Amino acid sequence: MRIDIITVVPGLLEGPFSHSILKRAEDKGLAMVRVHNLREYAVGKHKQVDDYAFGGGAGMVMMVEPIAKCIDALKAEREYDEVIYMTPDGQTFDQHMANSLSLKGNIIILCGHYKGVDERIRQKYITKEISIGDFVLSGGELAAAVVADAVIRLIPGVLNDETSALTDSFQDGLLAPPVYTRPADYEGMKVPDILLSGHNEKIDAWRFEESVRRTQERRPDLLKGKGLVSGD
Amino acid sequence: MRIDIITVVPGLLEGPFSHSILKRAEDKGLAMVRVHNLREYAVGKHKQVDDYAFGGGAGMVMMVEPIAKCIDALKAEREYDEVIYMTPDGQTFDQHMANSLSLKGNIIILCGHYKGVDERIRQKYITKEISIGDFVLSGGELAAAVVADAVIRLIPGVLNDETSALTDSFQDGLLAPPVYTRPADYEGMKVPDILLSGHNEKIDAWRFEESVRRTQERRPDLLKGKGLVSGD
Repeated sequence: MRIDIITVVPGLLEGPFSHSILKRAEDKGLAMVRVHNLREYAVGKHKQVDDYAFGGGAGMVMMVEPIAKCIDALKAEREYDEVIYMTPDGQTFDQHMANSLSLKGNIIILCGHYKGVDERIRQKYITKEISIGDFVLSGGELAAAVVADAVIRLIPGVLNDETSALTDSFQDGLLAPPVYTRPADYEGMKVPDILLSGHNEKIDAWRFEESVRRTQERRPDLLKGKGLVSGD
Repeated sequence: MRIDIITVVPGLLEGPFSHSILKRAEDKGLAMVRVHNLREYAVGKHKQVDDYAFGGGAGMVMMVEPIAKCIDALKAEREYDEVIYMTPDGQTFDQHMANSLSLKGNIIILCGHYKGVDERIRQKYITKEISIGDFVLSGGELAAAVVADAVIRLIPGVLNDETSALTDSFQDGLLAPPVYTRPADYEGMKVPDILLSGHNEKIDAWRFEESVRRTQERRPDLLKGKGLVSGD
């Protein structure tokens, strides 16, 4: 999988892709992330990438031409499955969308910044608009990093132990159960006996019950239609 | 405002706080973010910060003691309003929570990694658990950066023009209207005439209508209770 990220602040994305799981995925040849500085595609003698909004008001708007030039240059090199725009009014990102994006080959992610991109870019180039939640960030960069991280870790072989992702929250529609490690007794706070019992079946049953209980308490909305809500 | 972030992968957070708005907030003395490497608080001769989960299964669990030591050290230096844990089963982050956190003085954000932290840390130290959405990341670092960005940009004086944040999506419960900048005609795609009219009142009215229309189309759930849903 290849992800091309287009941004006016490439420095924001220095950390995420040179550490931890994303770095490992790249080292293993399982995923490749390339960050493109939109300023290299700036036009005119002032090398502008943004300008005032027509109609007035606070905040700058990202211009059509540099973005069009950058996307056209990428598309001339390879086929893309999706050209994604990160925006608060996009479709809300979730684990289901992460699973589906992890099956794609090449994708472009355009990061909005300032007041966002000129609407005509959205009409002409964008195939999918994604929001990571109902809040506003100073740009789409961190949101793009979040999407890349959530997607890349699902590619088989990226995590050391593939079962690890399968037991995460949301993969089965439930929140994960509590976890414990040594010491068994920390200042009088003890690990539940069952986890020390060595009885694998009972431990699995306890974890499932805890997952359901935690989901009922914190996110009953996730249980709808699963027949697991108390009183159903 | 001061935010202390505790992580096992500090390198992941190098970019976000040394660029753009977060850097400017720090330069202006309006916000301060400090990243703490949990490994410096590791215990025992092997300097461990994680260990196998009691009860077996894939994935490592972050140990109680290094986290306790780090939080205790921070608390010895100053009072904290919140000790936040980033976790997929936390309360879903939104603009309302960002507004409320932007009024706090000092907060700690603990980033989970691997399978998460030992449950006893959550019981003993954590005052608030936050999820940025229904998806799983390889760690809480990007989620912590997202929360810090969303919160810090709301502090008065951080954005160049304060009205800029007030016209963002979600601040008034509506999605933002489309934006346009030069050229007025891009390969035959034209900017709406109204935005070129210079008639401020009509432009404001058009933007409000577009905000409502876009919200109805994309996020009708945001309009409930506002009396703006068609047919209400």
